[in-house]
Amino acid sequence: MACALEAASDPAIAAAAAVLAPFSGPARTRLIGRGERLDAMGAAFVNAAAANFLDYDDTHFPTAIHPTAPVAPPLLALAEQHGHSGEEVLHALILGLEVECRIGHAVSPGHYARGWHITSTCGVFGAAAACAKLLRLTADQTEAALGLAASQSAGVVENLPTAAKNVSVGGAARHGLFCALLAQAGYTAAPGAIEGRLGWARAMGDEADLDLMLGDLGERWETADVAFKPYPAGFVFHAEIDACLALHDRLTIAPDQIAEVVVRGDQLLLDRGDRETVTNRDARVSIPHAAAVALVRGRAGVAEFEQAAVDDPALWAFRAKVRAEHDPAAPPASASVTVITTDGRSETATVTDARGGPANPLPDTDLEAKLRDGARAAGLEDRADDIIARVWGLDGGADIAGLMRAAAK
Amino acid sequence: MACALEAASDPAIAAAAAVLAPFSGPARTRLIGRGERLDAMGAAFVNAAAANFLDYDDTHFPTAIHPTAPVAPPLLALAEQHGHSGEEVLHALILGLEVECRIGHAVSPGHYARGWHITSTCGVFGAAAACAKLLRLTADQTEAALGLAASQSAGVVENLPTAAKNVSVGGAARHGLFCALLAQAGYTAAPGAIEGRLGWARAMGDEADLDLMLGDLGERWETADVAFKPYPAGFVFHAEIDACLALHDRLTIAPDQIAEVVVRGDQLLLDRGDRETVTNRDARVSIPHAAAVALVRGRAGVAEFEQAAVDDPALWAFRAKVRAEHDPAAPPASASVTVITTDGRSETATVTDARGGPANPLPDTDLEAKLRDGARAAGLEDRADDIIARVWGLDGGADIAGLMRAAAK
Repeated sequence: MACALEAASDPAIAAAAAVLAPFSGPARTRLIGRGERLDAMGAAFVNAAAANFLDYDDTHFPTAIHPTAPVAPPLLALAEQHGHSGEEVLHALILGLEVECRIGHAVSPGHYARGWHITSTCGVFGAAAACAKLLRLTADQTEAALGLAASQSAGVVENLPTAAKNVSVGGAARHGLFCALLAQAGYTAAPGAIEGRLGWARAMGDEADLDLMLGDLGERWETADVAFKPYPAGFVFHAEIDACLALHDRLTIAPDQIAEVVVRGDQLLLDRGDRETVTNRDARVSIPHAAAVALVRGRAGVAEFEQAAVDDPALWAFRAKVRAEHDPAAPPASASVTVITTDGRSETATVTDARGGPANPLPDTDLEAKLRDGARAAGLEDRADDIIARVWGLDGGADIAGLMRAAAK
Repeated sequence: MACALEAASDPAIAAAAAVLAPFSGPARTRLIGRGERLDAMGAAFVNAAAANFLDYDDTHFPTAIHPTAPVAPPLLALAEQHGHSGEEVLHALILGLEVECRIGHAVSPGHYARGWHITSTCGVFGAAAACAKLLRLTADQTEAALGLAASQSAGVVENLPTAAKNVSVGGAARHGLFCALLAQAGYTAAPGAIEGRLGWARAMGDEADLDLMLGDLGERWETADVAFKPYPAGFVFHAEIDACLALHDRLTIAPDQIAEVVVRGDQLLLDRGDRETVTNRDARVSIPHAAAVALVRGRAGVAEFEQAAVDDPALWAFRAKVRAEHDPAAPPASASVTVITTDGRSETATVTDARGGPANPLPDTDLEAKLRDGARAAGLEDRADDIIARVWGLDGGADIAGLMRAAAK
């Protein structure tokens, strides 16, 4: 909800809504942070694309799937239209996330590495499973919905730096709902659609690990490995940002009193982040930029990773002071940052479990702050408290139509 | 058009139309052989699924793509709505078929062998290119439409024996149109979406042959290798059927005067077709069933490959008389059939270039007969002459809305 609000006003989201408008049936449901209405398939598309737009949404750590974006939007649209309770939606959502992440886990890490955008390719299964649950499909119909989804799974990594990402993420949400509706109408699929000899997993290049996919159902929960990001940057940079923010608070010195910043971490951090920062996409995976925003501005929110921040002369100058060093002993996703001042002092902060990681999940107050930021970006700051209360109230059976009214214009 | 008419009344096509009806925008276009109306995306889906339903539609021999099913339907819907001429539609269609078959050729035969339903996975590119042409997109927008299609390409072979096939073929038509509309609205894609390091071809497991894809544009025409089937069975059985029909006409004897039938052909024919015939899907790839319908009924139309024909006691008994023999000297896709009568005579017919193959394309009268069969199945036999005249008149600029009025209820 926070991430969809944050991206709702982007021209690419507006364009998707405009393209879909003439192709929308009469029963219209709400777009998060926007004023138009679309039918449930259209709303599922736009809300999913918006939720994943900034890669700032939740992450399933074993697979790098952003699991909620393709799954929640079709549920919200169905529930808004048909009056399902918050409890029913949460139940279906958790089921959908579990199916999505288990299928993704069974083909990871090869699937993503080969070029499949796993949030899209596995999201369609999550959306199909979740919609099947909310629509109360039988077991056979649910199996059919999942099998049909195997023939609608799409999305390539090469396209991620472009609006084409929206098309595969939005498509996963929309097509998952469509597959559930077709299964409800009697459509069937092959029993081995996902794991069979000429099925989804092998066509995509992987032998699925069926134990990871199907083992310990109801006991092992992939959904428990889903966490929320505090910063709209690659998760591997979060420990560095935490360390720099800690040093910023501890040192309370002006940026021009800092002579040099040394960031130490494992090879993955250096591989992904030791680079020149020219575009806002570079900024999200840049060691120098992450250090600069945290030490100069004392924050690392959405505004700190937009093009205006990249082009900010103060940040441009500061990035030149940042140096990365490989530390073979550093644990994965950790960082150690040393600030050396112009008068020769030095101060170090080390972070092993970054905020928002599985070992250090964001507290509710931070999630609420993230939603407030999103509401502000959408021009709905006066609704933020209401939206927050309605989201926290979902497991008490709160009304989805009320939530969507609060979150839309 | 003939194949979509033939399948239009199938319950799976009716179910697709019913599921899409509540999700259709106000500008409704026609469904071939049916009475409902859907918006252009919905009509593209249903008409594409129907056209490919029986695998009786046109075939591009180098790839086994059925190229027209995903490409023509979105064009017909756009043209019906916006008044494009038959000439404009034909121009866009040929362009779309060419793009689709070239991309498919560049990843064949590995792509299909790995489990990708190439009609679906490449059809979306053809639909995107064709719609881009009809919508008069710029070169940059057309490139974007093709790149977006790379993130919507889906469909697995494992699902082909089920209605899930409809979902990927219909999806290719619908999503290709959507990609063109998104590109028109400013959506972009990665320059290497199709052939890049993490793009479509490599994610799907293939290094694309860029010469086959892009070489001799405007000189070499893949579309010239597209031909039409005379029988709704696998093409490899067509020479056998031709030979048996010739013998049926030559011998003019009752089936019970035939003691034995020996079918000789290459290994591919035997691998695919020497089997028990239990279902209508078996019948489409069965040496004994192909011989039985041709020699007993003297025809091999749609009715001869339905379950009722499989269960016909006369055909069941006759199939037991048919024996297949490998002939190492037989050319591919040829067949030699010997009929031995109860009174000891024997007669042989050999066919090397089956009807409907590239060397022996169907004459127009056979195409017209195929359309008449389809119109009859759709309950529109009184419209057949009108539909035929309108299709032949397309290159004279005939009106698409008139054609669709004639072909719908």
